[in-house]
Amino acid sequence: MTIQEQFRTIRQHSVDMCKSLEIEDYLVQPSFFASPPKWNLGHTSWFFEEMILKSFVPDYKPFHPKFSFLFNSYYNALGDRVGRSQRGDLSRPTVKEVYQYRNHVDEQMNKLFDNTELPSQIRDLVILGLNHEQQHQELFYTDLKFAFSLNPLYPAYGGTAYCETNENKQPDFIKMNEGIYEIGFDGKGFCFDNELKRHKVYLQPFEISNKLVTNGEYLEFIEDKGYERFEFWHDEALLWLKENDISKPLYWQQTDEGWQQYTLAGIRKIIPDDILTHITYYESYAFAQWKGMRLPTEFEWEAAADHFHWGERWEWTESAYIPYPGYAKATGAVGEYNGKFMVNQKVLRGASVVTPKGHSRKTYRNFFHPNMGWQFNGIRLAK
Amino acid sequence: MTIQEQFRTIRQHSVDMCKSLEIEDYLVQPSFFASPPKWNLGHTSWFFEEMILKSFVPDYKPFHPKFSFLFNSYYNALGDRVGRSQRGDLSRPTVKEVYQYRNHVDEQMNKLFDNTELPSQIRDLVILGLNHEQQHQELFYTDLKFAFSLNPLYPAYGGTAYCETNENKQPDFIKMNEGIYEIGFDGKGFCFDNELKRHKVYLQPFEISNKLVTNGEYLEFIEDKGYERFEFWHDEALLWLKENDISKPLYWQQTDEGWQQYTLAGIRKIIPDDILTHITYYESYAFAQWKGMRLPTEFEWEAAADHFHWGERWEWTESAYIPYPGYAKATGAVGEYNGKFMVNQKVLRGASVVTPKGHSRKTYRNFFHPNMGWQFNGIRLAK
Amino acid sequence: MTIQEQFRTIRQHSVDMCKSLEIEDYLVQPSFFASPPKWNLGHTSWFFEEMILKSFVPDYKPFHPKFSFLFNSYYNALGDRVGRSQRGDLSRPTVKEVYQYRNHVDEQMNKLFDNTELPSQIRDLVILGLNHEQQHQELFYTDLKFAFSLNPLYPAYGGTAYCETNENKQPDFIKMNEGIYEIGFDGKGFCFDNELKRHKVYLQPFEISNKLVTNGEYLEFIEDKGYERFEFWHDEALLWLKENDISKPLYWQQTDEGWQQYTLAGIRKIIPDDILTHITYYESYAFAQWKGMRLPTEFEWEAAADHFHWGERWEWTESAYIPYPGYAKATGAVGEYNGKFMVNQKVLRGASVVTPKGHSRKTYRNFFHPNMGWQFNGIRLAK
Amino acid sequence: MTIQEQFRTIRQHSVDMCKSLEIEDYLVQPSFFASPPKWNLGHTSWFFEEMILKSFVPDYKPFHPKFSFLFNSYYNALGDRVGRSQRGDLSRPTVKEVYQYRNHVDEQMNKLFDNTELPSQIRDLVILGLNHEQQHQELFYTDLKFAFSLNPLYPAYGGTAYCETNENKQPDFIKMNEGIYEIGFDGKGFCFDNELKRHKVYLQPFEISNKLVTNGEYLEFIEDKGYERFEFWHDEALLWLKENDISKPLYWQQTDEGWQQYTLAGIRKIIPDDILTHITYYESYAFAQWKGMRLPTEFEWEAAADHFHWGERWEWTESAYIPYPGYAKATGAVGEYNGKFMVNQKVLRGASVVTPKGHSRKTYRNFFHPNMGWQFNGIRLAK
Repeated sequence: MTIQEQFRTIRQHSVDMCKSLEIEDYLVQPSFFASPPKWNLGHTSWFFEEMILKSFVPDYKPFHPKFSFLFNSYYNALGDRVGRSQRGDLSRPTVKEVYQYRNHVDEQMNKLFDNTELPSQIRDLVILGLNHEQQHQELFYTDLKFAFSLNPLYPAYGGTAYCETNENKQPDFIKMNEGIYEIGFDGKGFCFDNELKRHKVYLQPFEISNKLVTNGEYLEFIEDKGYERFEFWHDEALLWLKENDISKPLYWQQTDEGWQQYTLAGIRKIIPDDILTHITYYESYAFAQWKGMRLPTEFEWEAAADHFHWGERWEWTESAYIPYPGYAKATGAVGEYNGKFMVNQKVLRGASVVTPKGHSRKTYRNFFHPNMGWQFNGIRLAK
Repeated sequence: MTIQEQFRTIRQHSVDMCKSLEIEDYLVQPSFFASPPKWNLGHTSWFFEEMILKSFVPDYKPFHPKFSFLFNSYYNALGDRVGRSQRGDLSRPTVKEVYQYRNHVDEQMNKLFDNTELPSQIRDLVILGLNHEQQHQELFYTDLKFAFSLNPLYPAYGGTAYCETNENKQPDFIKMNEGIYEIGFDGKGFCFDNELKRHKVYLQPFEISNKLVTNGEYLEFIEDKGYERFEFWHDEALLWLKENDISKPLYWQQTDEGWQQYTLAGIRKIIPDDILTHITYYESYAFAQWKGMRLPTEFEWEAAADHFHWGERWEWTESAYIPYPGYAKATGAVGEYNGKFMVNQKVLRGASVVTPKGHSRKTYRNFFHPNMGWQFNGIRLAK
Repeated sequence: MTIQEQFRTIRQHSVDMCKSLEIEDYLVQPSFFASPPKWNLGHTSWFFEEMILKSFVPDYKPFHPKFSFLFNSYYNALGDRVGRSQRGDLSRPTVKEVYQYRNHVDEQMNKLFDNTELPSQIRDLVILGLNHEQQHQELFYTDLKFAFSLNPLYPAYGGTAYCETNENKQPDFIKMNEGIYEIGFDGKGFCFDNELKRHKVYLQPFEISNKLVTNGEYLEFIEDKGYERFEFWHDEALLWLKENDISKPLYWQQTDEGWQQYTLAGIRKIIPDDILTHITYYESYAFAQWKGMRLPTEFEWEAAADHFHWGERWEWTESAYIPYPGYAKATGAVGEYNGKFMVNQKVLRGASVVTPKGHSRKTYRNFFHPNMGWQFNGIRLAK
Repeated sequence: MTIQEQFRTIRQHSVDMCKSLEIEDYLVQPSFFASPPKWNLGHTSWFFEEMILKSFVPDYKPFHPKFSFLFNSYYNALGDRVGRSQRGDLSRPTVKEVYQYRNHVDEQMNKLFDNTELPSQIRDLVILGLNHEQQHQELFYTDLKFAFSLNPLYPAYGGTAYCETNENKQPDFIKMNEGIYEIGFDGKGFCFDNELKRHKVYLQPFEISNKLVTNGEYLEFIEDKGYERFEFWHDEALLWLKENDISKPLYWQQTDEGWQQYTLAGIRKIIPDDILTHITYYESYAFAQWKGMRLPTEFEWEAAADHFHWGERWEWTESAYIPYPGYAKATGAVGEYNGKFMVNQKVLRGASVVTPKGHSRKTYRNFFHPNMGWQFNGIRLAK
């Protein structure tokens, strides 16, 4: 695919995902971390307008003078912005106007593609913008799921519940040898700056599971009073449990008919063989402690990744999100993409069932705070 | 008008007010106190379904089993409910479905009207429901204004800015004699329980202004550093000013082109002769202190109300919202209408430019916390 | 007594009250509202230094340049001050130094008394300062009780538990006639500015109890699930109950040996015939609702006060703390004594078992927020 | 030294450190993280009573039945405890009683030493208890400094300001080779469980400074508007700066006479050649970014530690505090010592001017949240 074809495909996918939405669904933001679909649609277009069109198209006229302010996420270099938790408070621009904005940006971008061979600087920004859009496509699913889950009517987004099963997998632990491993991206093509530089790490011998933890295994933890036994938890996690009155995973509820969970296809029964998901780092760690095991580090995960199946859950690691040796931020606004978040977060590896195709690789580093469970997170054990 | 005609007129008015809205506008709730239009439309229908249809129509089938939960505002007697600040987080039911709910309730109510002469118990509840709906019609304007004012695009609701002028009024202080006055409702027709019992109060001699404070007068207060001079303010108000960084009324902003304010017709210049509005009790008190005067009590206001023009601003009084002698709450859910709010609030008297016609009288007692300014509040001085 | 003798007596009393304290007890402040004894001792001296010595003694040298900052409570006119909840964080000045400060102020004040006849302006300030000190003597008991009650060792301050009994009182309701009553201070001698101006009020006929509510009566309310039945409570009170997990009065606890309470003499059994105390307005109101009665207004209380025994509990009234007609604040710092607190508080009438002798009268207006129970508050019912 | 001699020496040191305190100083706790001296004295005795005397002395009678509750810091296995921020609210036990408690514990421990050869299990616990006490000796200085710094009287603890100078050091960067290094404790004697297991890491080539950053260098950062330039800071750090209004290091203030700082010897001028201290990780990172450098990882630090002078400041590293490969917690209460804090904290290496003698080694891992600056923290740059 040419870059223009990629652009067309990925941009169209963002629109297609919204086809089953009502206008009302585009607006809801029940928490600071779950952006409304309307904002996601505007922000991904803003990225191209702000980073490319404004800089490289002579005499470019912005679609609207205030959209730079409205759709900035967190780029200080690009000026002030709407507060992160206020995105859902804005009824205007309307959904229709946001689609007009998308069309405008797409037209201008296509003109750029049509005119000449793109210089590599622009080409790199386009590819970054498309990878950025794919990240927001994943967030679209998880943010919408969070919003719908809080609605007493439990609306369904569609027919797919995203409850993958582990049923026929042979459980096993893969033995990995002690030694030096190369970590970080070295292929051709795109990667984020946080996957670089490729460098050597020394790993002690370890074992890592070939399968993800299931609902059934986690239910045993619950039934063994895992949420009440302090010895499995971090000190901060105990506070988090208490302040938020937590005794089960996000989206789970115990009803007269047994354990149920909210999914994008509505409420359904919890199947023990299904892969556990929407789990926080705090819970993952406590579960591993209860099992007498641990979570892998991100280096162990990457070193072993060719030996097991992955791609359905973002998998928590024990590693904190800090820069690789030789890490260098880009200059300007793009430099704010990753580096400034490298404190107090945990690395997740793999990809999830709602990760867009072509947007995963074994060196990919995702990261969230340890109390966050609204992504399709899962647990893989190590020892 | 028959009660059925009143019902039709008032219910229709709620719908008419929404004609210029986009679907998106029905959802926004930027603060716990400002409900989204969609919720207001559902809640006012819920009142009739819950208080009348469910109790008095044999075999009545509720429109939806969860609407009782979704559209309850604060009635503990009617069970659990959606948190007050979560009303804007619900994309479903859609606006269309809420209108279907309204139509359903209206049809059922009309059947009730058509069938027979209404017993007085039901009749009283209908009248209460209509007065309740009128209160929400006023809130529709003020809640929407609040939501729009926070949108950087400053949308206009319509062509009317609701900036009444005091220009040609002769300022004067009305002298009232010492003595016994009768306070509280004694007419025929409807009043709220908090306007009863009618009772005697003894008033010392006082004077009360025949006009409301203007923008120009308030600007003098600002320019005289009124917001910085602690001696005019309550101790709690000083904390409120500091924590919220307040130095001007809600909706005002100082720009390169002078003082401006957000109105329902968009941003416009502040006219000195216009009547000041969207002012809190804290500010009203401080302004009065600066003037060397005070606010009237609610009894002084009512005693003098026939001697001045009122109805454009809810006017803050010095009186706390507490029950009149002999006050009695109704039994059941209706008893929660007023009584349980009678602490820590201040009484406002009068009515405002967005109060529905027929919904004001001089014994009416409105009430808000002293830091609230999103109603069309104003200041009348006494001494 | 001459004013100098009064000065000596009242000042000495503040010191005598501290005799059974350990040095450590002088420092504790477990909440913003409960000042440590050391601060109280310093602040009451500061009042005389700041209001009198600095203004009226030529070439007066302050004891310490920073004490003006350290011991100011809330007087904005006298400059900046230590945050109210930081008073317990200061180990210096030591207790010994604070006593030296007291002695210094007393010596200087005595010089003033010795020299000449005091001008009335100074005399009035001395009397205000002594009444101020008496208020802090009462706070000494209630603040210390609060601090000790939170210590798992439950220290005793002394041998007196301050648990007065109602045992032999004949319960009765006093009938009061409708009509005009005079309210406010008119005697000779000292009163606070908030007791003025004396003015007429019109009261409807009412009845008021000749006795205070007992522990036994309140236990019936608890056993009748009074804390769980929403219909007795204000809306704000329900939130307060929930957020603070409240289901019994301050200092009460249910143990294997029955209901007990912390007192200044340590933990002891709750005696049903004893007068209930440490009760908030929220609880007083709910109790009255449960009884099918109400709290008196402050005007009813004052009008009837000669007909019943009072002085053991500060008694909650239904009246909000607002100025009397014709109320005027003094100019300067003294004007901050009362007026700026006249919002969001409830009036209490009477006096308590720890009110200093000579510091009570039937026109006295005490005031606290409705959620405050650490004073010796009680309930008298009206209907 | 025999273990009994060590016990006597270290225990006595805790008492000696308090010699210049007033009784009042033993109580102050201005923040949850800064425990009062009285509590530190009680808690270090509690450790021996709880972990050793209660378990290994037959028929041991605890000194006081409630001290187990009062002086527990964070051991869930040992039951409930006083809230961490309530330690300063307890006036009792008095300072005298806490010393009696210490004497009692010391006597009982000495009996244990006298009687027989200690079994290794007890011996290990004694050594842990002594290392624990040494940690609290360091905290004594830093907690007291924090408390005194908030007192407007700025009391001095003694004559030593702990402002070490870098004056005569030759600045240089030490070049370290790429390769495998062994990390973690392998000597004889005591180490904490978090220093194990010793394991191999692979380090890329790096350079590390032979000296710590000075006040003068940091002043350049401030003068270059370092606190205002977002590009140097983590996203969370920007929020921290804003919410706490931070624009300079803890204890620094700009006065008419230039930059000054609070020290344990009182307020004094900031000397440019002195080593910077009381700096947070957030500030350390931003400073390094401004310099175009970075902080070392804890592995780099340990690998290079023999090549530079250290021991005056705890030095922030880029490493998150997570377990070493093969890390194993002890069972029982002792297992709560370190492991449960291994999330959301950063590792510091080295030791500080107030670290007790004999309590430092190059494998020692200290850890704090990135916003904490009340320890004698410093910055060493790497590249």
